[in-house]
Amino acid sequence: MLKIPSHIAVLTSGGDAPGMNAAIRAVVRSAVYYGKKITGIYNGYEGLINGNFQELNSRSVKYILNQGGTFLKSARSDRFRTPEGRKQAYDNLAKTGIDALIVIGGDGSFTGAKIFSEEYDFQVIGVPGTIDNDLYGTDFTIGYDTATNTAIECIDKIRDTASSHDRLFLVEVMGRDSGFIALRSAIAAGALDVIMPENDTTYDHLVETINRAGKNKKFSNIIVVAEGNKLGNIFEISNFLKGKFPHLDIKVTILGHLQRGGSPTVYDRVLASKLGVAAVEGLLIGRNKVMAGVMHQQIIYTPFEEAITRKAYINPELIRINKILTI
Amino acid sequence: MLKIPSHIAVLTSGGDAPGMNAAIRAVVRSAVYYGKKITGIYNGYEGLINGNFQELNSRSVKYILNQGGTFLKSARSDRFRTPEGRKQAYDNLAKTGIDALIVIGGDGSFTGAKIFSEEYDFQVIGVPGTIDNDLYGTDFTIGYDTATNTAIECIDKIRDTASSHDRLFLVEVMGRDSGFIALRSAIAAGALDVIMPENDTTYDHLVETINRAGKNKKFSNIIVVAEGNKLGNIFEISNFLKGKFPHLDIKVTILGHLQRGGSPTVYDRVLASKLGVAAVEGLLIGRNKVMAGVMHQQIIYTPFEEAITRKAYINPELIRINKILTI
Amino acid sequence: MLKIPSHIAVLTSGGDAPGMNAAIRAVVRSAVYYGKKITGIYNGYEGLINGNFQELNSRSVKYILNQGGTFLKSARSDRFRTPEGRKQAYDNLAKTGIDALIVIGGDGSFTGAKIFSEEYDFQVIGVPGTIDNDLYGTDFTIGYDTATNTAIECIDKIRDTASSHDRLFLVEVMGRDSGFIALRSAIAAGALDVIMPENDTTYDHLVETINRAGKNKKFSNIIVVAEGNKLGNIFEISNFLKGKFPHLDIKVTILGHLQRGGSPTVYDRVLASKLGVAAVEGLLIGRNKVMAGVMHQQIIYTPFEEAITRKAYINPELIRINKILTI
Amino acid sequence: MLKIPSHIAVLTSGGDAPGMNAAIRAVVRSAVYYGKKITGIYNGYEGLINGNFQELNSRSVKYILNQGGTFLKSARSDRFRTPEGRKQAYDNLAKTGIDALIVIGGDGSFTGAKIFSEEYDFQVIGVPGTIDNDLYGTDFTIGYDTATNTAIECIDKIRDTASSHDRLFLVEVMGRDSGFIALRSAIAAGALDVIMPENDTTYDHLVETINRAGKNKKFSNIIVVAEGNKLGNIFEISNFLKGKFPHLDIKVTILGHLQRGGSPTVYDRVLASKLGVAAVEGLLIGRNKVMAGVMHQQIIYTPFEEAITRKAYINPELIRINKILTI
Repeated sequence: MLKIPSHIAVLTSGGDAPGMNAAIRAVVRSAVYYGKKITGIYNGYEGLINGNFQELNSRSVKYILNQGGTFLKSARSDRFRTPEGRKQAYDNLAKTGIDALIVIGGDGSFTGAKIFSEEYDFQVIGVPGTIDNDLYGTDFTIGYDTATNTAIECIDKIRDTASSHDRLFLVEVMGRDSGFIALRSAIAAGALDVIMPENDTTYDHLVETINRAGKNKKFSNIIVVAEGNKLGNIFEISNFLKGKFPHLDIKVTILGHLQRGGSPTVYDRVLASKLGVAAVEGLLIGRNKVMAGVMHQQIIYTPFEEAITRKAYINPELIRINKILTI
Repeated sequence: MLKIPSHIAVLTSGGDAPGMNAAIRAVVRSAVYYGKKITGIYNGYEGLINGNFQELNSRSVKYILNQGGTFLKSARSDRFRTPEGRKQAYDNLAKTGIDALIVIGGDGSFTGAKIFSEEYDFQVIGVPGTIDNDLYGTDFTIGYDTATNTAIECIDKIRDTASSHDRLFLVEVMGRDSGFIALRSAIAAGALDVIMPENDTTYDHLVETINRAGKNKKFSNIIVVAEGNKLGNIFEISNFLKGKFPHLDIKVTILGHLQRGGSPTVYDRVLASKLGVAAVEGLLIGRNKVMAGVMHQQIIYTPFEEAITRKAYINPELIRINKILTI
Repeated sequence: MLKIPSHIAVLTSGGDAPGMNAAIRAVVRSAVYYGKKITGIYNGYEGLINGNFQELNSRSVKYILNQGGTFLKSARSDRFRTPEGRKQAYDNLAKTGIDALIVIGGDGSFTGAKIFSEEYDFQVIGVPGTIDNDLYGTDFTIGYDTATNTAIECIDKIRDTASSHDRLFLVEVMGRDSGFIALRSAIAAGALDVIMPENDTTYDHLVETINRAGKNKKFSNIIVVAEGNKLGNIFEISNFLKGKFPHLDIKVTILGHLQRGGSPTVYDRVLASKLGVAAVEGLLIGRNKVMAGVMHQQIIYTPFEEAITRKAYINPELIRINKILTI
Repeated sequence: MLKIPSHIAVLTSGGDAPGMNAAIRAVVRSAVYYGKKITGIYNGYEGLINGNFQELNSRSVKYILNQGGTFLKSARSDRFRTPEGRKQAYDNLAKTGIDALIVIGGDGSFTGAKIFSEEYDFQVIGVPGTIDNDLYGTDFTIGYDTATNTAIECIDKIRDTASSHDRLFLVEVMGRDSGFIALRSAIAAGALDVIMPENDTTYDHLVETINRAGKNKKFSNIIVVAEGNKLGNIFEISNFLKGKFPHLDIKVTILGHLQRGGSPTVYDRVLASKLGVAAVEGLLIGRNKVMAGVMHQQIIYTPFEEAITRKAYINPELIRINKILTI
């Protein structure tokens, strides 16, 4: 017979993402709705080990739906990678009577969750909260839509000054291992090109692209560069281009951590709300070691194993479209 | 053998929506990419009848991707509802050598497009540009995501003052025949309730909801009201509630036309870019009397007939979730 | 010898304004800086009467600098208009050992403060927190800059749709007794005209202005209307114009309470920070029954009497400039 | 007898600033209002030398009031530093019948304007358009308010993620020679400290400040750093602090050029409107070699000599306040 949890804990882990607060709110209120006790863990897995627990209720999560960041705070935990750390975490949960855990985070967080769940036969469900959008099992991760909109608001401003001075701007967006933010930002910004982990942009190709833009009388241009591309550091790219195009006025902007903050968009608030509910309901129907996601507007539960190891793929259609639109 | 168009025209019709400019840009650049002539028609069907045409090129649509509104302007046309008007429109197109038309608009615009296409055997493709999201054949229409984000930015501000004064605000959002904006805004705003064409909110239910909120110590509240709900005009609703809850401080705000403007979100820019390309490519592969849409991240061509008559459905899951989250 | 206060209370009163939280923060931290006890009163004068007090410290006001509204909440109080109410308020203050009060609000709030201060010889300083900007003794009131920026963001969006459809929009902004928001918004929006309490716009003048705009080929236009103008309700004005210009597409938008919310602008945050410090320092140097303001970048203390009765004047230069710029 | 100009030219020069378009619009419409011919010069002084002129009218400047950047574009010109370049510029103006020039820009631009005006006895008025706010003769320069609001929107987002992770962020804002943006942003952001050209922050002081913050339980902090401070490059500062506080999570963000773009705030739109009118009216009443500014809400004309050489001063009151508020 299915053992139904009576006391659920929730934590946020890894890099924070806009919408995490909305997800926590949805978890808490769903738990209350279904008559379960609900406890918030501060500082991610560190708080699990340190016993940094606080019982929550429906009112604890008021006015946080539209706030960036995570009020439960987040942290990386080396100790949770050790058996001793996980033992301590388990003891704290057991002592408090908590029998299920919801982890809001990215692939690293789910890897830890999976090991812990297996080790202690503890019921765990994940909610994809990361601006990187690099998880299999959900069309969008929580925070991705906000991060790209933030990037675009910045690039729109850069466009103003690029246009006033007929400049070429290289703009670095987040994405060490994936180009989701880069590609979508590039299309939405009308960027001349995008350099990202998933493509093999060469210097020859870049030179050709910039030459073609000149011929087409596009005098102010944006090139979006993902942190983790294969071509090189954005300053190296800039220096190369300055050498090749000495008459061009080339500038670099690195958007950095501001992409992680800000009030979440409608998309992220609704997604976080759906997934927070789905996580609690998944626990109630016995799901374990899975991530709740939305694919094709349906709630989907994907095993941690699959969510982590199958790479989310970049829609090649977007790459094709970007080429057409920068003509 | 398939007759492939050599000269494409594009117009925007009906109420304007953020992202229409991005769609025009995508149509123009795709046409250029495929070596076609491309002409912009001003003022929708009125401009078709008046011969208000302008040939466009790749540079004509620079710097419009992030602009609200439509630089081709839009208008409603009574004359296009008459055979004489459509005859005049056809003559203008024929005279200019235009052999295909892309209409960016909503259901009214597509009804006109369908009749015209049948009458003159003229190749027409539609692109869903309307903030109402009420078309079958696409998950989102162009402008819907921006309009809901605009609504939410306004409601977030109203929330500040509601909270400072422990007030109940009724906020009217657009949507004469559908509650898409209302429902999504309500979830994203953490609204107490939503009153929309698709539900049968009664006054009894409202009273009960507000009583429950008071018991749960929710002292400042938002209720989102769609223009076209069954309960009544927002001022009638407000007056009823003032009668029932004389101690409550109840205010009304009607967001109105500002929901139609503003720089489009990333979602709308990317969607408009995809659909503009898809419209041109649809013409090249012989599609006719269809609307280009995106369902499940795939381009779909839906016959005008179906797009207009099959109603886009409100996801009942969202209604269920909203109930849980306002506990 | 000067009696220096040892325990200061702070409250917000009247309609809320963005930046009130920033002002509270500045009051609290200045009090701590100068070694004084500091207590927050909830719900304005109502809380004073009800004894709704909470001692605050430096950490109580973290993360509120950029939040709209007022975490101390605000309310209007009929009881504070009675001697009994004020007696109760005084008793609560005396009982708690509070010997000075800072009131953040508008003219109504300062009237109450003045009476109370005289009646009980209680030291009170005011901080001008109102979006209306209608107080003498400060160039800008806290909230005014944010409210006009909010209005302008909305009108910019309305401009998009006005332009797409060649429409005339009448946009109502807040201001029952003064046209500060209206005039500044009109200039910043490039509005065709502004109707406000301080001018005597006639229907003849309006008709002439619209005719002139037509001759100058200005086909989409905005007219900004203050709530409290002499010409009439915005719907009456709209109906009159529809009668006069049947071919024009005329729409009305009432911005309403959203002008009161939102994260404060830099101007309001800095102003609120300055004035919060100035209020505490004013108490320490014996000021009483005065409002702290900034004129010509200097801190000025103006007697309540003067701040309330001398009207802030609309800069006639702005009216002249608006006429030139809408040519 | 006063020679009144009949044909005015306008150009934007130096780094662009939000509100330059609003200033151009005001210049053009004022010139039309006073019955003068008005010509726009593209690309600053380069366009003056190259004869890149375009006659403008009232309609040429529609819909630009709310746009960032400058549609006349801007550029730095080495040739205008040579007598030959200025001779060419003068010949172009004379040939076109232009007898007065308005230069929108910063100190470098006014230096060129002064030399040119003296050399050719040509009437020139300057309008302060620079985000740096470092000109004497005006309380604010056009673009400064927008740039600080942009900085603050970014820092507010960074605050979200700083708070989620208890991090210390060093945020670099623009300002090579002055700390106006840095200081005002720091107050508005509630930053722990500000490092700028005008102060002598030492490493010892920084260490002490961070230690004090820790004692006060301020775990997430922002330090604003102006580009041109005396302490060192932001990465050097970061590295030093990482060495001193190995347990702290310290990050760097450089806001960069996005501070130059974006739709201008109400303050900048109104200021630009006032100054554009004042520049034209100054020409009509014989002013020459002066910059139009607003001090104490009055239009002031300051000789170029003075505007350039007298430094705008940082209000020491703001530095004092910042110290109090970060307690």
